[in-house]
Amino acid sequence: MTQPSRPQLTLQDIADRLGARLVGDGSRRLSGLATLKRAGPDQIAFVANRSYLKDLAATRAGAVLLHPEHAASCPVDRLELDNPYLGYAQVSRLFDPILAQPSGGIHASAVVAEDVAIGERVEIGPNAVIEAGVELGDEVVIGAGCFIGAGTRIGAQSLLHANVTVSHGVSIGRRAILHSGCVIGGDGFGFAHDGRGWHKIAQLGGVVLGDDVEVGSCSSIDRGALDDTVIGNDVKIDSQVQIAHNVHIGDHTALAGCVGIAGSTRIGRNCLLGGGVGISGHLTICDGVQVTGMSLVTNSIHEAGIYSSGTGAMHNAQWRKNAVRFKQLDDIARRLTRLEKRGEQG
Amino acid sequence: MTQPSRPQLTLQDIADRLGARLVGDGSRRLSGLATLKRAGPDQIAFVANRSYLKDLAATRAGAVLLHPEHAASCPVDRLELDNPYLGYAQVSRLFDPILAQPSGGIHASAVVAEDVAIGERVEIGPNAVIEAGVELGDEVVIGAGCFIGAGTRIGAQSLLHANVTVSHGVSIGRRAILHSGCVIGGDGFGFAHDGRGWHKIAQLGGVVLGDDVEVGSCSSIDRGALDDTVIGNDVKIDSQVQIAHNVHIGDHTALAGCVGIAGSTRIGRNCLLGGGVGISGHLTICDGVQVTGMSLVTNSIHEAGIYSSGTGAMHNAQWRKNAVRFKQLDDIARRLTRLEKRGEQG
Amino acid sequence: MTQPSRPQLTLQDIADRLGARLVGDGSRRLSGLATLKRAGPDQIAFVANRSYLKDLAATRAGAVLLHPEHAASCPVDRLELDNPYLGYAQVSRLFDPILAQPSGGIHASAVVAEDVAIGERVEIGPNAVIEAGVELGDEVVIGAGCFIGAGTRIGAQSLLHANVTVSHGVSIGRRAILHSGCVIGGDGFGFAHDGRGWHKIAQLGGVVLGDDVEVGSCSSIDRGALDDTVIGNDVKIDSQVQIAHNVHIGDHTALAGCVGIAGSTRIGRNCLLGGGVGISGHLTICDGVQVTGMSLVTNSIHEAGIYSSGTGAMHNAQWRKNAVRFKQLDDIARRLTRLEKRGEQG
Repeated sequence: MTQPSRPQLTLQDIADRLGARLVGDGSRRLSGLATLKRAGPDQIAFVANRSYLKDLAATRAGAVLLHPEHAASCPVDRLELDNPYLGYAQVSRLFDPILAQPSGGIHASAVVAEDVAIGERVEIGPNAVIEAGVELGDEVVIGAGCFIGAGTRIGAQSLLHANVTVSHGVSIGRRAILHSGCVIGGDGFGFAHDGRGWHKIAQLGGVVLGDDVEVGSCSSIDRGALDDTVIGNDVKIDSQVQIAHNVHIGDHTALAGCVGIAGSTRIGRNCLLGGGVGISGHLTICDGVQVTGMSLVTNSIHEAGIYSSGTGAMHNAQWRKNAVRFKQLDDIARRLTRLEKRGEQG
Repeated sequence: MTQPSRPQLTLQDIADRLGARLVGDGSRRLSGLATLKRAGPDQIAFVANRSYLKDLAATRAGAVLLHPEHAASCPVDRLELDNPYLGYAQVSRLFDPILAQPSGGIHASAVVAEDVAIGERVEIGPNAVIEAGVELGDEVVIGAGCFIGAGTRIGAQSLLHANVTVSHGVSIGRRAILHSGCVIGGDGFGFAHDGRGWHKIAQLGGVVLGDDVEVGSCSSIDRGALDDTVIGNDVKIDSQVQIAHNVHIGDHTALAGCVGIAGSTRIGRNCLLGGGVGISGHLTICDGVQVTGMSLVTNSIHEAGIYSSGTGAMHNAQWRKNAVRFKQLDDIARRLTRLEKRGEQG
Repeated sequence: MTQPSRPQLTLQDIADRLGARLVGDGSRRLSGLATLKRAGPDQIAFVANRSYLKDLAATRAGAVLLHPEHAASCPVDRLELDNPYLGYAQVSRLFDPILAQPSGGIHASAVVAEDVAIGERVEIGPNAVIEAGVELGDEVVIGAGCFIGAGTRIGAQSLLHANVTVSHGVSIGRRAILHSGCVIGGDGFGFAHDGRGWHKIAQLGGVVLGDDVEVGSCSSIDRGALDDTVIGNDVKIDSQVQIAHNVHIGDHTALAGCVGIAGSTRIGRNCLLGGGVGISGHLTICDGVQVTGMSLVTNSIHEAGIYSSGTGAMHNAQWRKNAVRFKQLDDIARRLTRLEKRGEQG
């Protein structure tokens, strides 16, 4: 990637791309996006929820993106949209310096095997290594220092940031975004014990990522033992996430940072797993399940809804007293039942 | 590594390597391994436990690996073994395309210091960097983009996948497998406070890995402060694991994904730590301890057995009511005792 | 970095650098640092706390660093200091082979853009990639295989170990130490939902690290959505830590391994977060807060002190009985209240 420089757009350009109603000067030139508080006259701001309305009257933004119901309070030019948070997402990408300037070309220092199939306008960064039989779709960007193992296929318009590792025999869909340090296709954790020690089970499956998958920094998705590990379309995976072998994740599911999913578990579609959630192996989690941060899931979930475990932080002195009682909890429950019975008999 | 292509073996070859009893056509050619359900006539399948027996009658596999007690139900050629799961592990490695085809040689783009000691049939991938004084045993494979710091020794037949980092002064035994993104020998986390801020304690120890150690993707093992961090023989470490400075881990112990072990703790032999387990610093965990997923261990364990902490996930509404009561637990226990005493007095 | 070789210093040199009182032979040559038990005649040892006093009488160290109150028990030459643990930190750095030998120079295989601003005595390792507009202060060391994105600035005397990734538009202060596999400036996790699926919110902010920041192996600090993610001066971050977009961390705060902090949370100055702690998004944690290992913080903390959550590990059989009662805890509390009322009425 070349040096970032943010593009200039007119307010009319932005309105057209968003399908928004423009009220104001369509020729106004904008070079960036900022919060209501920080935006200057060459920037566009937005009101994504009511908690920011208080900043609207005093904004110095060149224009504001908002819901029509807040139009009357807007002191500057505006774009009206029914889903202004979605509009914010769309505008943010118009001003992304990375997306704006694909430089194209294969760097002289990249090591690319002879039989790699390379699409149109592909960019391969310095010191990247692409093994034999790899297929790269149109407009794929492979960052500096990336490694793509033999026979792996990467769909059109996918972006691999610097120092990503994709092992052999992996299939990645279109428009993937893989962040630095993530590893796709390392071996799953499989060993047989002979009574004395471990014998490795070769991990002969691959990893299949659907379209529009994003994987955060330093996350890992292990390859399957025999069949593949499968990540659906539009699955969003944050940083420091671990997905073990033969896990399946349904379309549109999002996993926050530090989530860990053990082997062969199947997560449904449209699930949301909070940061640090752990899910045991060989479970089935149905569609539409949300799990709050740092919860442990040890049983399958067959009903959509919100699930939690654990307890929140408290003063250490208070916690010590309560935590020690946790070890007596069964005893407490039994003693309570005994007292109740005595009361009934008395 | 070159392009994967799976080897072809006869059923007799496989029987010989496993020491299995062959019943059927020893000249049958097999090119892979699959589940009973998915295997075709050129693949071998296996029955590792009873839950898969239901798929045996209908299998289309060319041959099946199983325990003699299930032989009668097998509709195709078979290999009989007392530990078919172990047999599966052995067969899986026969068909591993990575293990099958070491290409050998030092890539022209690798940067290898002059005095590196390189054994027989060593492979060093593109853009790998090997610093001065490194020793690489026979048949070591260093993947693309790996970094091996000064004075580090790596034992024979070890395999480092692409983009592994091994810092200076590390000692790795024979047959290690290090997955992409893992880091061996980063600094331990040590600082002295002077009342205002932190002063770094240089981490002058190293890391010693025994023979047959595997380390998963994106895991980190920090170097010792003065003495070494020590990982025993046949220790298996999954992805996203953190091992702090001066930890010792005994032979044959296995750590699942996302485990974190704080500084100077000693883990025994033949332990199993479930995913996300956290172990505090300066503890001793004896041999044969199993800790279930996401448990927190804050005290030493002196007796083999299974240990757990935490609570499983439940509906969020139910959880909220219970979690708030956790903060009252000591109070609940005291009130219960008071009631009991009143009952005795009454 | 070149091959490590530890420097030789006289006891007088060390006394001068520490401002310590020397009792003994100032011309004694020392080549390393070790524990009281292991140190030989050419090494210096230390007594950082009373628990090591038992080893003092029998030490074979060439000299010992200790508090004046323990001077009488010291059988060898000594350096007296009021804060011997701080003295240990200082001496450890005198003997650090990495810090002792910066080799200097830009390796021929590094790919450095034309307009990079490079200070005095900068070292850039093999296969590092430095994009356009980067600024590297004096005596910066960029390890092998590092990637530095366009427009990023790195302050004087910062050390990036091998295979570190710093994305575009990041600002790093002086004397930073970044360990292998860490990623600074990957995208924050931001998406808008349109009722069917996810739309990416481009992460247009950067990351700002103050002076004297250390980041451990495989840790990730995500770039801000609009404004920056901000890490204060002298913040110490261990391995496998995840810091989400727009987090602010105050000066001198330390985060142990596997900590995860969700988006937009603000952590105060002089905080200590234990290993595996998780902090929810959009919270404020005040100065001087300590959180013990693996605690979950879901509410802001406005008072300095020690905070905890969770429960410690116990025998699995005991735990099963108690954990199932946790789901009845609200019911238990209600039943107890009922009994108490009955008792009062009776």
